Amino acid sequence: MILQPIIDLVSICAKKGIRNVVLSPGSRCAPLTLAFVRHPDIQTKTITDERSAAFVAMGMAQQLEKPVVLVCTSGSAALNYFPAVAEAFFQQIPLVVITADRPPEWIDQWDGQTIRQNNVYGEHVKGSFQFPDEFGHPDKVWHAQRMVNEAINLSTSFPAGPVHINIPLREPFYPEKGEIFDFSSNINLIEAISVLPTLSEETQAKLRSKLNKFSKILIVPGQQRPNVQIQKLLDELVESHKAIVVTDTLSNLQSEQTINCHDHFLGLDKWNEALDPDLIVSFGKSLISKNLKLFLRKSKAAHWHIQPGGYVPDTYQSLSFHIPTTPCHFFEFLKENIPSGNPEFRTAWQQMDQLVQNNLSKIIDEAPFGEYKAIQKCLQEIPDNTKIHVANSMAVRYVNLLGMREQEIICNRGTSGIDGTNSTAVGCTFTTKDQVTLITGDVAFFYDRNAFWHNYTMPNLRIILLNNHAGGIFRLIEGPANQPELEEYFETEQVLSANHLAAEYGFEYINCTNESQLEFALQSFHKKSIHPKILEIHSESVSNAEILKWVKGKVSRMINSN
Amino acid sequence: MILQPIIDLVSICAKKGIRNVVLSPGSRCAPLTLAFVRHPDIQTKTITDERSAAFVAMGMAQQLEKPVVLVCTSGSAALNYFPAVAEAFFQQIPLVVITADRPPEWIDQWDGQTIRQNNVYGEHVKGSFQFPDEFGHPDKVWHAQRMVNEAINLSTSFPAGPVHINIPLREPFYPEKGEIFDFSSNINLIEAISVLPTLSEETQAKLRSKLNKFSKILIVPGQQRPNVQIQKLLDELVESHKAIVVTDTLSNLQSEQTINCHDHFLGLDKWNEALDPDLIVSFGKSLISKNLKLFLRKSKAAHWHIQPGGYVPDTYQSLSFHIPTTPCHFFEFLKENIPSGNPEFRTAWQQMDQLVQNNLSKIIDEAPFGEYKAIQKCLQEIPDNTKIHVANSMAVRYVNLLGMREQEIICNRGTSGIDGTNSTAVGCTFTTKDQVTLITGDVAFFYDRNAFWHNYTMPNLRIILLNNHAGGIFRLIEGPANQPELEEYFETEQVLSANHLAAEYGFEYINCTNESQLEFALQSFHKKSIHPKILEIHSESVSNAEILKWVKGKVSRMINSN
Repeated sequence: MILQPIIDLVSICAKKGIRNVVLSPGSRCAPLTLAFVRHPDIQTKTITDERSAAFVAMGMAQQLEKPVVLVCTSGSAALNYFPAVAEAFFQQIPLVVITADRPPEWIDQWDGQTIRQNNVYGEHVKGSFQFPDEFGHPDKVWHAQRMVNEAINLSTSFPAGPVHINIPLREPFYPEKGEIFDFSSNINLIEAISVLPTLSEETQAKLRSKLNKFSKILIVPGQQRPNVQIQKLLDELVESHKAIVVTDTLSNLQSEQTINCHDHFLGLDKWNEALDPDLIVSFGKSLISKNLKLFLRKSKAAHWHIQPGGYVPDTYQSLSFHIPTTPCHFFEFLKENIPSGNPEFRTAWQQMDQLVQNNLSKIIDEAPFGEYKAIQKCLQEIPDNTKIHVANSMAVRYVNLLGMREQEIICNRGTSGIDGTNSTAVGCTFTTKDQVTLITGDVAFFYDRNAFWHNYTMPNLRIILLNNHAGGIFRLIEGPANQPELEEYFETEQVLSANHLAAEYGFEYINCTNESQLEFALQSFHKKSIHPKILEIHSESVSNAEILKWVKGKVSRMINSN
Repeated sequence: MILQPIIDLVSICAKKGIRNVVLSPGSRCAPLTLAFVRHPDIQTKTITDERSAAFVAMGMAQQLEKPVVLVCTSGSAALNYFPAVAEAFFQQIPLVVITADRPPEWIDQWDGQTIRQNNVYGEHVKGSFQFPDEFGHPDKVWHAQRMVNEAINLSTSFPAGPVHINIPLREPFYPEKGEIFDFSSNINLIEAISVLPTLSEETQAKLRSKLNKFSKILIVPGQQRPNVQIQKLLDELVESHKAIVVTDTLSNLQSEQTINCHDHFLGLDKWNEALDPDLIVSFGKSLISKNLKLFLRKSKAAHWHIQPGGYVPDTYQSLSFHIPTTPCHFFEFLKENIPSGNPEFRTAWQQMDQLVQNNLSKIIDEAPFGEYKAIQKCLQEIPDNTKIHVANSMAVRYVNLLGMREQEIICNRGTSGIDGTNSTAVGCTFTTKDQVTLITGDVAFFYDRNAFWHNYTMPNLRIILLNNHAGGIFRLIEGPANQPELEEYFETEQVLSANHLAAEYGFEYINCTNESQLEFALQSFHKKSIHPKILEIHSESVSNAEILKWVKGKVSRMINSN
């Protein structure tokens, strides 16, 4: 039997522009599966491990900037979605999570595949909806359509994020012979118009009078997708000497104009007064550079945060003003309303940045081979039109240390987990023919290996795997490095290499243990192929830690002697 | 710096008899990790993938019947525990889930590895506790100890289950040089005494008068661990002709006296009046046999459920009486207070059961080789002192169809998921030197492959992997089998075999594609070894479905002609 409200749900998704659905197999969700699969405008993919499936959907939605639908069966399937749901929530990525459920009367009766699914994602979704389980009263049909409209609108309104629709379903789940799915029935479509939150004349006057006091403006973009318009405005602000822009790699706003090597010179013990701003302007999501965060927290500057809505973070413990508009709108205003800033402030930042930029490569060249040098070499060879996915914990830190990048950099910094790195990159490959290069460590890589357990080709996927057979980050933090439990309980040595995995999935596999092997491998690594390629670079956790320390010391001596 | 309340938490765990802790690596949780690792009475294991870690802990607690502690870092780590937390909740297994967290002021400030952890398991834990983040006031020290006592007591009181303690921690996380962990400080220990919920004289009289009306008593135990005392009582009730006991394989109460082949004869189209009870007495958790469930739902009999406390299920939609005592206490009472029952009722059940039991083996012998015959042969060769873990979906159904087992049968029927089958079996190997044999399908097996990603040996682990390269259950259900989407969206063909996995982890590996290979392999499969062994049995999803149907038809014709 076909349940028309389920067909209508799919019609509403399609009419609201949803084109991609990631399914996981199950029986309870069959009515949803069939309806999505049979809709002419919708592409479906099936991925068995729901933890991966959800990160794949998130990786797709991240690129498409449109909701992707997830569909799973009843029971613990929904719980396996949760890590990606939380990541999407904090990374503000639209997802429509649809979980099939038993009807309410069968919850807590010890029937199979039954948990308490209603509201199961708690505070990590923008909205949680319980679909009607009966349609005897005509209002129920309206309510179901209303709910689906609202859920999709909510997922895309600022800040975007995941929404949950829990759908109780009774047998029979399957259409009878000859039954046809009718996607043409009348449905209520509720469109959501987006508005531009602009600053009134009165507010502008107020801001202008406040801005008078500041001459050392530091603009700090957090994680966001590339944005040509914002980039242009920021570059203009720097070129006209009105502000300094300090950009983590995850801001995707790095340019010749921005400060990109701050992670090296802000970490020095001495407080550099010349760098101290009097106004911090932040927007976007989180930062990766701990040195930058600590620097901003130490500063006594005023702090304005630009964000159109949603809850407001105070990452630097000094927030004084929330300006609920878009970065573009605010920077347009700023550009017109401030004079050139303090030249000493500007010069201090730019000289420091230039100094590191001019010397870093040479210093790394002098270091022995290890992760640091390997990532440097790999980044040099990555084609321009590549999406670079980087894993927590060390991969993203190395990339940030290595300065300006032109390619888009993507990292799961919503929850900063390692649990879905591969899957997010896999999702990205489903949205583009450009190359997708994942730079990852062994712990993140093997943790999420089920990312590859599906039947879809990913010819544009390249994986650079830095295998030190441990969670190397723990050796780089002073605390654990001094404990006798370091190797067993913090680094947690792991013995796997990727050769078996590559053979299992039919990926091309290249093994490197030294610099010349790596250089040779990189000559062909980015060339076209039918299958994904893994470049596994082996290194020692102990020497990686020593090299990082050595480079840091060398850079800081270089700065101090200048 | 050492935080004494964390040390005290560990002391309380140890004093309350907790001996096992499963850790996952992280920095935020370092104070907990170090304290558990350094306590002389506690054994710790480190498992990186938190989804597996939690199922491993659950597999241990299931066997030990004592709480096992889980410790993870802040962020999405806690979410990866959730599938096992829900399974433990519905399977009533005690777990103490400890999640390290950022202090409250850093939640929602977009700092790394931060989610909204407080109460994150919602309705799937018995209790959720927020540890103090400051100990300036002396009441805070008392409160922390009070909370740990209460959490552990709660996890073990009937029905046992998971509890969550969320622990905000500030840096520094690591002890300074020379600092010593002092587990000898005075702590408040709150012991919980268990009580026996007995029936008053008045209640007994009331029950006696009710029992007068019944002469066809059917006792239906749900899933539970083996229990010699209950088994003896049930056997006595049958031997004295007072009741019939129908046992699914998961009841672990099967004997020569009980009905074990009901899944074959209750599924026949014709309603067999002779089998109809007038009183159903249930206890334990869920059933696996859908035929038995449907039979009980069709019956007009009264239904009494025996369970000392907790929420009461009504799995057969006919519950009329909840008796809040233990099965033992109730069956002692029953034994003394009922006469022999209706002989036609008894004979009908026992003859049917005998008929199937006498003929099933022969029928399967006649069938072509496939999963059914393979599992039959494997079960025949499993040593007596084995714990048999079976996966959802088909493995547990085949085992149930194959009748009486003397070994303990374990299956994750709390949520009926496939997400932690391997890990639960791995946890079991950590508690016993007896052999642990896992019977599983390919989807469950590859889903939870990270179960093996750790550094502990499991010489007593044997895995029988029925690989049909798909979720074969979908071909056995009429609905999906008739859809054109069957192979891609329901069965979801998967190409992996276990040979790569075995090579990767250094497991012994035996490959079988026919009956004689299997017979040969079984001669040595259960012999001692240093490494786990995988016996992979390949079959075709299509022919498995045909064989199952053929056996069913043959059994039903055999029954109808008798």
